[in-house]
Amino acid sequence: MVSARGARALLSDLVSSTSPVDPTHLVLTLSCPDRPGIVAAVAGLLAEHGGNITESQQFGDPLSGLFFMRVQVTTDVPVTQLRADLTRLAARFEMAWQLDVAGRPVRTLVMVSTTAHCLNDLAFRQRSEALPIDLVAVVSNHDLLRPMADFYGIPFHHVPVTAATKAAAEEQLLALVEELDVELVVLARYMQILSDDLCRRLQGRVINIHHSFLPSFKGARPYAQAHQRGVKLIGATAHYVTGDLDEGPIIEQDVERVDHTHAVQDLVALGQDVERRALARAVRWHAEHRVLLDGNRTIVFR
Amino acid sequence: MVSARGARALLSDLVSSTSPVDPTHLVLTLSCPDRPGIVAAVAGLLAEHGGNITESQQFGDPLSGLFFMRVQVTTDVPVTQLRADLTRLAARFEMAWQLDVAGRPVRTLVMVSTTAHCLNDLAFRQRSEALPIDLVAVVSNHDLLRPMADFYGIPFHHVPVTAATKAAAEEQLLALVEELDVELVVLARYMQILSDDLCRRLQGRVINIHHSFLPSFKGARPYAQAHQRGVKLIGATAHYVTGDLDEGPIIEQDVERVDHTHAVQDLVALGQDVERRALARAVRWHAEHRVLLDGNRTIVFR
Amino acid sequence: MVSARGARALLSDLVSSTSPVDPTHLVLTLSCPDRPGIVAAVAGLLAEHGGNITESQQFGDPLSGLFFMRVQVTTDVPVTQLRADLTRLAARFEMAWQLDVAGRPVRTLVMVSTTAHCLNDLAFRQRSEALPIDLVAVVSNHDLLRPMADFYGIPFHHVPVTAATKAAAEEQLLALVEELDVELVVLARYMQILSDDLCRRLQGRVINIHHSFLPSFKGARPYAQAHQRGVKLIGATAHYVTGDLDEGPIIEQDVERVDHTHAVQDLVALGQDVERRALARAVRWHAEHRVLLDGNRTIVFR
Amino acid sequence: MVSARGARALLSDLVSSTSPVDPTHLVLTLSCPDRPGIVAAVAGLLAEHGGNITESQQFGDPLSGLFFMRVQVTTDVPVTQLRADLTRLAARFEMAWQLDVAGRPVRTLVMVSTTAHCLNDLAFRQRSEALPIDLVAVVSNHDLLRPMADFYGIPFHHVPVTAATKAAAEEQLLALVEELDVELVVLARYMQILSDDLCRRLQGRVINIHHSFLPSFKGARPYAQAHQRGVKLIGATAHYVTGDLDEGPIIEQDVERVDHTHAVQDLVALGQDVERRALARAVRWHAEHRVLLDGNRTIVFR
Repeated sequence: MVSARGARALLSDLVSSTSPVDPTHLVLTLSCPDRPGIVAAVAGLLAEHGGNITESQQFGDPLSGLFFMRVQVTTDVPVTQLRADLTRLAARFEMAWQLDVAGRPVRTLVMVSTTAHCLNDLAFRQRSEALPIDLVAVVSNHDLLRPMADFYGIPFHHVPVTAATKAAAEEQLLALVEELDVELVVLARYMQILSDDLCRRLQGRVINIHHSFLPSFKGARPYAQAHQRGVKLIGATAHYVTGDLDEGPIIEQDVERVDHTHAVQDLVALGQDVERRALARAVRWHAEHRVLLDGNRTIVFR
Repeated sequence: MVSARGARALLSDLVSSTSPVDPTHLVLTLSCPDRPGIVAAVAGLLAEHGGNITESQQFGDPLSGLFFMRVQVTTDVPVTQLRADLTRLAARFEMAWQLDVAGRPVRTLVMVSTTAHCLNDLAFRQRSEALPIDLVAVVSNHDLLRPMADFYGIPFHHVPVTAATKAAAEEQLLALVEELDVELVVLARYMQILSDDLCRRLQGRVINIHHSFLPSFKGARPYAQAHQRGVKLIGATAHYVTGDLDEGPIIEQDVERVDHTHAVQDLVALGQDVERRALARAVRWHAEHRVLLDGNRTIVFR
Repeated sequence: MVSARGARALLSDLVSSTSPVDPTHLVLTLSCPDRPGIVAAVAGLLAEHGGNITESQQFGDPLSGLFFMRVQVTTDVPVTQLRADLTRLAARFEMAWQLDVAGRPVRTLVMVSTTAHCLNDLAFRQRSEALPIDLVAVVSNHDLLRPMADFYGIPFHHVPVTAATKAAAEEQLLALVEELDVELVVLARYMQILSDDLCRRLQGRVINIHHSFLPSFKGARPYAQAHQRGVKLIGATAHYVTGDLDEGPIIEQDVERVDHTHAVQDLVALGQDVERRALARAVRWHAEHRVLLDGNRTIVFR
Repeated sequence: MVSARGARALLSDLVSSTSPVDPTHLVLTLSCPDRPGIVAAVAGLLAEHGGNITESQQFGDPLSGLFFMRVQVTTDVPVTQLRADLTRLAARFEMAWQLDVAGRPVRTLVMVSTTAHCLNDLAFRQRSEALPIDLVAVVSNHDLLRPMADFYGIPFHHVPVTAATKAAAEEQLLALVEELDVELVVLARYMQILSDDLCRRLQGRVINIHHSFLPSFKGARPYAQAHQRGVKLIGATAHYVTGDLDEGPIIEQDVERVDHTHAVQDLVALGQDVERRALARAVRWHAEHRVLLDGNRTIVFR
């Protein structure tokens, strides 16, 4: 017999690459209509607060006319003062902005059905590779993966879904999201389609891993479709979920080489590696505030 | 002033990795309904002719019920005798088969429009990387790439195409194919659609490079479509041409990572590398008799 | 509280891609001095036993003069008869050969220290991706990973190693290998060097994952060396262990792109992915009898 | 007969992705000891000159304590004024800095011996992929590649090298570098070792492509070494040349998968693709002022 608590305790000893979060190390992300002087204004404001910029990226999209920026900065000035000054600056430049402590674990809820590889991968990376998420719940329409959630010490919620109970199940999910202060929902091979309404309410906070190289092979059984078409690479796509199925903004994609000897079930097995890789990167970049939305496209400041 | 002939002579000095073709080194490819004893029968026949098998691959497709095999063999027995015996064996097993000298350059006609990278790549690899093709003609609906064909010493045929002249232009192409004993036609970014009739007549002998990761972004301007969709990888697909546009059997695919900073014209430039890589591999495998057709899928014995 | 047994039971429900092992589906591997007639003799013998070849690969190494072959075959003839006939054939061709049931799980012992990613990966793939191994023991010089072994239901043996106890520890390992009929030992980031004597006694049966792109950065702290040198790709190497440290035959290598922003600990974290990927492939190919030794090089019939 | 001039003229028609260089679009690169306020000071200065920042990257190296920055900016203010103000700022922060027109072609001299693929690739990309270099000379110790230089319209200088003439040959090279205002020398598979003195005099301005995955297989015949060791990936390394052979700062590396079927000459042929890819990227990044030196490591602002 093994206690989940013991397992958790021991596993957390394994974490070697994480450093404790430093509350004076901040990450600022912003977007606004592009015009001269934005960088100077932002960098100037940070300098006035004694800020030392440790990382900074920006992008002006000539198509949308929008400017995007991500800055990591260390400062000893209280964050409240900085927020107040940023609010003033934002008004001047019509900025949407967000300020967070760099590396603060994002409160994350993972939804699964019966396939374990993505959940196992995220939970393992959270511990051993300093993936900055806090796994506050696993929600599943099946009970199968409860032992894995238990092993990693994540509360498991079995929320069955049928046509009749779907609306209630989504209410239950939303209640959990609220109660647990969930910031990010990850569909880690969750085989139910979320309602339009739910997609809208959680917009920009739900990441799905689709087991194809979108936009190829939308819909059901993408590996069977890929096999049928005889492609030489299979892929996976991590994207934000929108009401428009399989059409949400793409965050990351990856591929794996296949050949004629691979049957559909081989593609499924090979695909597990691609899926978890692409998903883990997308979750990391989101949690590190590296992903900004530019219409239906993403800016990823890697 | 440089003479094309001088350039050709000097460039051919560069070829270091080619060995002269050895007429006793043969490559046999075959397919037939799967059943026990095929390998034993083929290997036995080759052994009776003093054959030494240097490379051999096979695949039984459980879906189509077909068996595919490729054997490289050295033998001192005259090929005519071997052909006669193979004919008998083939009748017994209902085999389709082909016997050729390994590494014999395949007589190849390249079709281009105004983009040079695929032509330059094929011509260069033919010389410096022992790509086993003989470039017997470049056919183009524009005159722009004539100097490049001249440089590599390949006869250039300018065959303009308009709606009115399309049928005549295709007749001219077929005449060239016949006259020059062309075995392989490569559409190296040729921006005209071949007629159904032409596709049928040259079936299995025309390779196209499509500038997208098929089946994504079929049709026109795939890089613009890819940019619009915000994909994180762009790709290219080398496939046999069939009457069903962009649906022919895929031989090879490759991808390249892109991000939000790439405008459409950047994707076009990056794509050149992927296109020429995928095309060069497909042409090499075809010319080395490594590609066999299994319905609309390809077996590639790499 | 979760019982390991329950976890194991539930996890084994996850296995979807495995088929039960078919005792009439065999895999034959062999090597011998190259000469004409080998394939015909082998294929002929198999045909006489009603064998249907489902997969076959071969390679003649012009440097060593050796011929290598791997055949998968289905046959209803009793294996004992086949073995007897193969023994006669082997004598005639001076063959080393091995016959096994295809997909039979290879009895595997995994050695770890304090890093969990390779163990977690192998154990997970064994369940969810039909990696054909049977994990009969985890041996560690630390007690840290016991909960993970427990979770996956693998007996855990804590065998501490000091300079004084090293010989005794190796005796203990050898006793386990014998007692458990271990066929394969995997050093999954085991941070002790095996003695020459042990290497010799387990020759060809021990696979190590080295956390560098060998032969670069041999010895200790390869990621620190890689960072110091400013390389743009880091890698990992799965190889058979020999007495000559870091010089054993390479089975598989893989790389990951890095840049100037990655500190040493980032390379360590990124490297985990490359290590487990390369190791999992090497273990799979070994377990499927796809790896043959050709001096200090490997033939991998993928 | 084809005239080089005609070829050049026609080829330059192919250029579709290049835009004419915009003299008001500048790129500023700088490095200095890290401290708060650098970005604010630089961005502020640029804003005072009406500058609009279109791209900006920075990196503070915790090991060397140095800060690196690259900014692209459009401004209508005369560059002379900007230079004067930057000089003052640089004094205050102990900055090394460089200001250039973005996309201005860098005057480049390519050195070759008898292998054409890197020269062909650079010359082709210069035309068709907007690689921002101006190929002002090809220098070779052989006469073999003259026709290729002629085809691309690049003056060819045959400078034979023997032990006796080496010093004189290097003087001749330096004279060319001076006379032609050469900014970048590319060793595109040039098979002579430059003297220490020459390396020092051209420091940071010479890029070499090494045909191995450094630091593996330094010295002669790397592909033969790689084959001997039985590696599963071969690679190439583009690096700045220093007096310390094969130890200069690495700019880019890439790899290609190989297996047991590849003989040494196959590795050489496959390696051509990796070499030219890695070299082309390194040359592009250098020419776009994306590569900064941080001791023996490079910062690459891609």
